Amino acid sequence: MKWTQTLIPTLREAPSDAEIVSHKLLLRAGLIRKLAGGVYTFLPLGLRALRKVEQIIREEMDRAGANEVLMPALQPPEIWEASGRAETASNVLFKVKDSSGRQWFLSPTAEEVITTLAANEINSYRQLPKNFYQISLKFRDEIRPRFGLMRAKEFIMKDAYSFDTTDEGAMAAYKKMYDAYTRIFARCGLKAFPVEADTGVIGGNYSHEFMVPAETGENEVAFCEACGYAANIEKATSGIPKTAARDMGPAIEKFATPGVVTIEALSKDPYKVPANRQIKTLVYVADSKIILILIRGDDQLNETKLMARTGAVAVRPATPEECVATLGARPGSLGAVVNVPASVSVFADGRLQGANDMTTGANEDGFHMKNVSIERDIKVTAWFDLRTVSAGEPCAKCAKPLKIRRAIEVGHVFKLGTKYSEKLNATFLDMDGSRKPSVMGCYGIGVTRTLQAVIEQGNDKDGIIWPLSVAPYQVCITPLAVAPDSQAMQMAEKFYAELTARGVDVILDDRDERPGVKFKDSELVGFPIRIALGEKSLLNGEVEIKPRTGAVQFVKIEEAVDSVLKLICV
Amino acid sequence: MKWTQTLIPTLREAPSDAEIVSHKLLLRAGLIRKLAGGVYTFLPLGLRALRKVEQIIREEMDRAGANEVLMPALQPPEIWEASGRAETASNVLFKVKDSSGRQWFLSPTAEEVITTLAANEINSYRQLPKNFYQISLKFRDEIRPRFGLMRAKEFIMKDAYSFDTTDEGAMAAYKKMYDAYTRIFARCGLKAFPVEADTGVIGGNYSHEFMVPAETGENEVAFCEACGYAANIEKATSGIPKTAARDMGPAIEKFATPGVVTIEALSKDPYKVPANRQIKTLVYVADSKIILILIRGDDQLNETKLMARTGAVAVRPATPEECVATLGARPGSLGAVVNVPASVSVFADGRLQGANDMTTGANEDGFHMKNVSIERDIKVTAWFDLRTVSAGEPCAKCAKPLKIRRAIEVGHVFKLGTKYSEKLNATFLDMDGSRKPSVMGCYGIGVTRTLQAVIEQGNDKDGIIWPLSVAPYQVCITPLAVAPDSQAMQMAEKFYAELTARGVDVILDDRDERPGVKFKDSELVGFPIRIALGEKSLLNGEVEIKPRTGAVQFVKIEEAVDSVLKLICV
Repeated sequence: MKWTQTLIPTLREAPSDAEIVSHKLLLRAGLIRKLAGGVYTFLPLGLRALRKVEQIIREEMDRAGANEVLMPALQPPEIWEASGRAETASNVLFKVKDSSGRQWFLSPTAEEVITTLAANEINSYRQLPKNFYQISLKFRDEIRPRFGLMRAKEFIMKDAYSFDTTDEGAMAAYKKMYDAYTRIFARCGLKAFPVEADTGVIGGNYSHEFMVPAETGENEVAFCEACGYAANIEKATSGIPKTAARDMGPAIEKFATPGVVTIEALSKDPYKVPANRQIKTLVYVADSKIILILIRGDDQLNETKLMARTGAVAVRPATPEECVATLGARPGSLGAVVNVPASVSVFADGRLQGANDMTTGANEDGFHMKNVSIERDIKVTAWFDLRTVSAGEPCAKCAKPLKIRRAIEVGHVFKLGTKYSEKLNATFLDMDGSRKPSVMGCYGIGVTRTLQAVIEQGNDKDGIIWPLSVAPYQVCITPLAVAPDSQAMQMAEKFYAELTARGVDVILDDRDERPGVKFKDSELVGFPIRIALGEKSLLNGEVEIKPRTGAVQFVKIEEAVDSVLKLICV
Repeated sequence: MKWTQTLIPTLREAPSDAEIVSHKLLLRAGLIRKLAGGVYTFLPLGLRALRKVEQIIREEMDRAGANEVLMPALQPPEIWEASGRAETASNVLFKVKDSSGRQWFLSPTAEEVITTLAANEINSYRQLPKNFYQISLKFRDEIRPRFGLMRAKEFIMKDAYSFDTTDEGAMAAYKKMYDAYTRIFARCGLKAFPVEADTGVIGGNYSHEFMVPAETGENEVAFCEACGYAANIEKATSGIPKTAARDMGPAIEKFATPGVVTIEALSKDPYKVPANRQIKTLVYVADSKIILILIRGDDQLNETKLMARTGAVAVRPATPEECVATLGARPGSLGAVVNVPASVSVFADGRLQGANDMTTGANEDGFHMKNVSIERDIKVTAWFDLRTVSAGEPCAKCAKPLKIRRAIEVGHVFKLGTKYSEKLNATFLDMDGSRKPSVMGCYGIGVTRTLQAVIEQGNDKDGIIWPLSVAPYQVCITPLAVAPDSQAMQMAEKFYAELTARGVDVILDDRDERPGVKFKDSELVGFPIRIALGEKSLLNGEVEIKPRTGAVQFVKIEEAVDSVLKLICV
């Protein structure tokens, strides 16, 4: 490709709404343009890089035995109602009515469609196992689209769905996808690592996310360098000990705490109750039902865990008015020792199990209670792991201290079990003549997000640093004179023809611009290898070859093509 | 690919809602499945064929110098309001509101998006000419989706948009696309031919459609075998003579025609006014304005021409009540000689120009007028070509009789001029320092429809007849025994490996089914070449090679691979 024949509108400055480096570079390098909030056009170079990511995914999916299909973007609500997700995923679903008044959902994923297909087309164990995937446009009604392609209203996703006869078969399919994902991200040049994950709205009972470490990532991951444990903070646990039991006064004692409504205030003079001896009582609304949550004063509630443990689809803190209506007091003085209505469930974090000598609110504004023994004095409905782990806590597996880092989620694999196949009737006739629901898994890769993650991980002050596998062009030939009869341009055309014939993706910067401008643009777009052709070095029988992150090498003209081929390992 | 590893759910009978042969075969051969009305899933084989069509289009677009991009499906209404199409295309636009209440249109085409992009990124004549294309999902709110992929609610379209500095440049871009389209359809094995076309809602002043002849096509094309003239019936003209002037009585005469409300009734006893001596007066509502249309009694009004000539976006026949309100009479007795309100335009078909001795309604129920000279007695606002041509009329270019055939529209090229660039401000600084709007063209191919047209054109009683270029697999190897240690299966695996290594797309039918079932399925899916491996012929050192539409050839085992390669011209 000649530079002047395509469109590479590089920018000196990124628009002010681009917050993170990869978003800025996508715009500055002329790879994408914003049409509206959360909606982008891929320009020629951005699309080339995207197609390369897609092709890597396609090759690895095919290699893993998955069959490519293409499912519709317009999905009938009936199948979403059958799966139960019409309600649980409602907040991210784009809904559209056609002229006949019929409603459609725009596909965010396709569990319902593929399971319906399997219900119709797969009838016998002899047709199983099967795995179907597609690389297609997806839609998500993001309230706050941000970070460019990271969180967009429409995006390209690879989604795959496996169907097996047994749980072991499903685990094998899961493992195959897990391994394929590992290869895919490695081939994209990404340092991605798998972490245990919550299954959320998708459902299922076993799940990993593939994470790319990045300061700007929207996820937090807890991990152990010693044993390799890694989990999304939404799911992570630690080996932190339960609250130690100790001597305490024999009876609960109510005491006045005028104006004290925070853990911190109660830990100071004159009360001096350490946070780890306080029970924090939170009133929540889970799927429109009031519940109480007890957590240690120095811990934080993890709402994802709360949803996972209680099965609630939506949770929110109760309003002060709801607190008063439930417990007779306002936040800051709440407790679960007295006045808890029998209809209200009390969920307590496991770290509090057996704790005594605790202080908690008295359900009377301006009063607390001390000498509380949680198992003696509070009627706990169920004990759950509800707290968020912190850096430095001991690993649950090996007791070494956990670390926490931010990361970008690029892939997610789920073992679904029979959740969808039962609801949508995707059954098969087994060898023994009985009819059983298929055991399913589902597997997603954010394709456009992966592309941006490659840039978020690979860049420097001058621009993008592409891996060879994803670069829009691998080699940029830069003649410093572009008149058709100049020696530089003629040599450039010759290299262009030779490298192209060898299967290398080459762009020739035929713009009549100053060398500085051309070099800067080539670094910004980040082509892995640049060949500069200046009249002076050509007179010496040499050309300049510069890897994007390496030093300039002067190479004899006749050896230039071979040198480039060696650099890109053709 | 092994047959048992993929999903090819062939059917003996097509579902009853499949009306045309290509739709039936898409379903019976297991290429697609219906999810809901007008919405289909591509199964593995259907997707393979679709990708081959896409790749042919991509190669020819690239060869013609177009740059591939990818524009969003979600489009902001503001740019459609700027172009004027928010109103004119409203009836086919899917409209969706996001959770913030903002409205989006689902892309049926992308003139507005690409012109907005050009407005932002193209600033100088030095950046022109440019042509951008995408192959992407499109949406159309079809009230009556039908014929499978032919008229679906979502479909894949290739759309391209050219930008030039001059009208001549735009014509050259148009010619390049016209030539690329000719190559694309030829490479897909389609007998497609270009016809002159109306520009419709897209706009512009010059347009061709590419048509595939088919009895089931939704278009009619008038064409001349002698000189090559061809046009969509919506646009076609002929050399049919004007109505001959002749002697007539001197004055208009009103006469009673009780109960006569059709052209035909008036042509019979006792009135005997031939249809070609009657003026048909039609009352229409064009964009909510009442207009009159005069057309000869033996001609038919062409509504597309009416819209094109008057610039109206929507036209419909007036209701009987509207006729009475306008002219004082009901349909059957309408005319334009008397009682036409001054505010009502009268558009007459050119074939009536100079006609006299005509009969028309008297605007009084049960009465007509004779001895009408149209130019003397009727105030015609404008003369237009408004009639639909019929088979047998003389060609306007060479006077030979026109023929009419049905056809499927697979492509459409438009010279747009500056309609969009002016409205969306896509201007460039020209060499002379002045700012001018780009001169545009747009070019569409219905990719999914093209795939179905290939099947509509290529089939017989046994199934699909694919061209080699689009077939999901070129060769089907059919061992008649599939035990891993059978000679047939071992030879099949050997051929599979050898042909695959030579770049041939091969499927191996490893199903444990009777030969008859396997042969029938292979004919139904329509693989161009089948290699059958039976124990008996293998004992003779031979295999059976059968082209889909040719006779069985017995070929020596050692020559089989070469024979196949020769058949597919590798």
